[in-house]
Amino acid sequence: MTTRVLTGIKPSGTPHIGNYLGAIRPAIAASRAADTESFFFLADLHSLINTQDPQRVQRSTLEIAASWLAAGLDPEKVWLYRQSDIPEITELTWYLTVVAGKGLLNRAHAYKAAVDRNREERQDDDAGITAGLFMYPVLMAADILVFGADKVPVGRDQIQHIEMARDFAQRFNHLYGKDYFVLPEATIDDAVATLPGLDGRKMSKSYDNVIPLFAPREELKKLVFSIVTDSRAPGEPKDTAGSALFQLYQAFASAEQSAAFAQAFADGIGWGEAKQQLFERIDSELAPLRARYEALMAEPEKIEALLCRRGQQLRERFAIPLLKALRHAVGLRALSAATDAPAATAVDRAVLPVFKQYREKDGRFYFKLLDGQGALLLQSEGFDSPRDAGQRIAALKQAEHDDALRAAPVTLEAEAGVVLAALRQLREAA
Amino acid sequence: MTTRVLTGIKPSGTPHIGNYLGAIRPAIAASRAADTESFFFLADLHSLINTQDPQRVQRSTLEIAASWLAAGLDPEKVWLYRQSDIPEITELTWYLTVVAGKGLLNRAHAYKAAVDRNREERQDDDAGITAGLFMYPVLMAADILVFGADKVPVGRDQIQHIEMARDFAQRFNHLYGKDYFVLPEATIDDAVATLPGLDGRKMSKSYDNVIPLFAPREELKKLVFSIVTDSRAPGEPKDTAGSALFQLYQAFASAEQSAAFAQAFADGIGWGEAKQQLFERIDSELAPLRARYEALMAEPEKIEALLCRRGQQLRERFAIPLLKALRHAVGLRALSAATDAPAATAVDRAVLPVFKQYREKDGRFYFKLLDGQGALLLQSEGFDSPRDAGQRIAALKQAEHDDALRAAPVTLEAEAGVVLAALRQLREAA
Repeated sequence: MTTRVLTGIKPSGTPHIGNYLGAIRPAIAASRAADTESFFFLADLHSLINTQDPQRVQRSTLEIAASWLAAGLDPEKVWLYRQSDIPEITELTWYLTVVAGKGLLNRAHAYKAAVDRNREERQDDDAGITAGLFMYPVLMAADILVFGADKVPVGRDQIQHIEMARDFAQRFNHLYGKDYFVLPEATIDDAVATLPGLDGRKMSKSYDNVIPLFAPREELKKLVFSIVTDSRAPGEPKDTAGSALFQLYQAFASAEQSAAFAQAFADGIGWGEAKQQLFERIDSELAPLRARYEALMAEPEKIEALLCRRGQQLRERFAIPLLKALRHAVGLRALSAATDAPAATAVDRAVLPVFKQYREKDGRFYFKLLDGQGALLLQSEGFDSPRDAGQRIAALKQAEHDDALRAAPVTLEAEAGVVLAALRQLREAA
Repeated sequence: MTTRVLTGIKPSGTPHIGNYLGAIRPAIAASRAADTESFFFLADLHSLINTQDPQRVQRSTLEIAASWLAAGLDPEKVWLYRQSDIPEITELTWYLTVVAGKGLLNRAHAYKAAVDRNREERQDDDAGITAGLFMYPVLMAADILVFGADKVPVGRDQIQHIEMARDFAQRFNHLYGKDYFVLPEATIDDAVATLPGLDGRKMSKSYDNVIPLFAPREELKKLVFSIVTDSRAPGEPKDTAGSALFQLYQAFASAEQSAAFAQAFADGIGWGEAKQQLFERIDSELAPLRARYEALMAEPEKIEALLCRRGQQLRERFAIPLLKALRHAVGLRALSAATDAPAATAVDRAVLPVFKQYREKDGRFYFKLLDGQGALLLQSEGFDSPRDAGQRIAALKQAEHDDALRAAPVTLEAEAGVVLAALRQLREAA
């Protein structure tokens, strides 16, 4: 059983090496695990809560996409997409809004923190607070639920939002009598140590102590040499404990390399020499990333095309079929559809596609694939025996790529992505 | 200059004659005024705030659409559509959410009334209140702004919501430096008298004193004969003042008919005879509506097809072009698009389509129509002279229907609706 793992990335400018080591590198490593289907999205709709600078939104989205790709994300093996390319997300946000308890949203950390700041400044509780900040957890729930994510890796401060997504999903499932939504789980990785910045405090843009991930070699060197150290002279033994320089080295080095560097500290390496070694260590890992990043940034149209293509695939495979089922669930149905069937049963039937086998007047054996609403997705040619047709159906049921569809003697009556999604649904229900 | 008037209709079952006289009949009459473009929408997304019964949502949507059509709404002269058929509305809701002040939403009447009820019952302020009720004014603003409505006829209790829509629109226009949104105005018709119900109180479902608009003739008669009167005997003069029976008659009668009926009251008409006259008066107006309603309800697929078609036209003409401009405004842009142009100018250029004329190597004269982003919408064949080409452009600029496009020696490179929308934009800007 494949686990779907979803990671949102807020477009907020170029990342620094703290982001790389703490978030990007481990997430990319995790995306390579077997039985994992990874979803990475550029959270541009969320970014509108924080900025009204359109060029910054556009530029940051590009930079963040290029950063993750340069860092090794394989966009054909994982889903990398832009939130705003999936219009079903804002539609789903409304269906969740009508089941979300307002009282629950009042208790969201980010909103409460903003209220607390207003109180400290003796302002009205909601002074300067937008509905965007208040409704952020509902949009985030839609991000997660639209693709049926099982796991959402988050920081501890975000656990509450995943719990809210579970709450909205459960309410909806309960109200409409069927498990439309997977209940997501937060996964927390406490092993990630905080990376120190140039001044020894946590590396953070707000402390102005960061090393940008794609700083050119010369700038990287200058930044590394500006790391604050103590005043011990060359020849004097140095402490590794509490040394920002040593922690940075460790983050980029193997256990053996780190042990050797610790020995050099004990042997009294000079700070200049230590910084040179750290610089070379970081640069040897980052130089190829930097080159890829620059190449990607030079051709934004390629990233644009990638995001558009993958977004469209995601819509066809997941978002469009799900929203079709949800619309039916809440009653947004064709007015001509029968109204007397019990809702839950109608939905059960509506969701699963079906293969139908039959014999035509020409004596040959055919099959077709219908979706849950009875629409034709795929039509076979005639086979000599039912066994031949059955074997072809069995093969089709395993199809995961367009090629597998085109190899069979069948005519597609819907887009390949829709047919593949239907086959996948059948496999998952089996 | 055409005024756009927008009316939302909540699908809440079959209307009664109070709804007909107070809302449906005057709205349909107003929609026939010159220089008015009317938008009537079935507010099914709003209805999800109040009900989790999918069959009721579906059934009510059908009944309300059939009611308005039966009452004389001409669906080719006005826009009659279903809110959920315009996915741009929920997307726009998010763009408004991020500019909407939470403090303003706290003061919305419907939300405050729910909080007051909780306080009376010594509950938490937000007990049982959904985010749907709280966010309702933002969705309503999106309904209005997506089609650039100038006027929104509402009851006094809804004026506040129109003011909120203006507020969100103004904030967005201000933040993004351009008048993307028309500021809507509420129009109030205080002339509409309250219609009495069977017991003399205001006709209202909550008093169980209504006459359903499409009650069969026999049921209508029974209901009219159940109207409460005083105990004066035939021959005794009757008061018209305060008489529910007389007020109902008046609502369906001309001034002359009402005067004659008042005379009959003064002359001591018996209540039975008065009720018979009222019944005949109402039935003579409603019988044709009832017949049309029954015919419409018997063919729901026709209403479904109408709503789908008109919804799609509305999207192409208004919603899709507007959302394209809004996405650009907030920074949700193609990553490959230039980022250095000042935002407002880029948008100005983005919004207006343009005809380009040119001469090809074959010596002939051509033109093409580009949209604001430079995408090809329409391509002409060659003309002998620039004058011929120019005349064709002039004719095209007046095109309001598909036929006019197909008549010209041009090839459409986009859907006809999109091309017509572009031509319309040009006319309006001229």
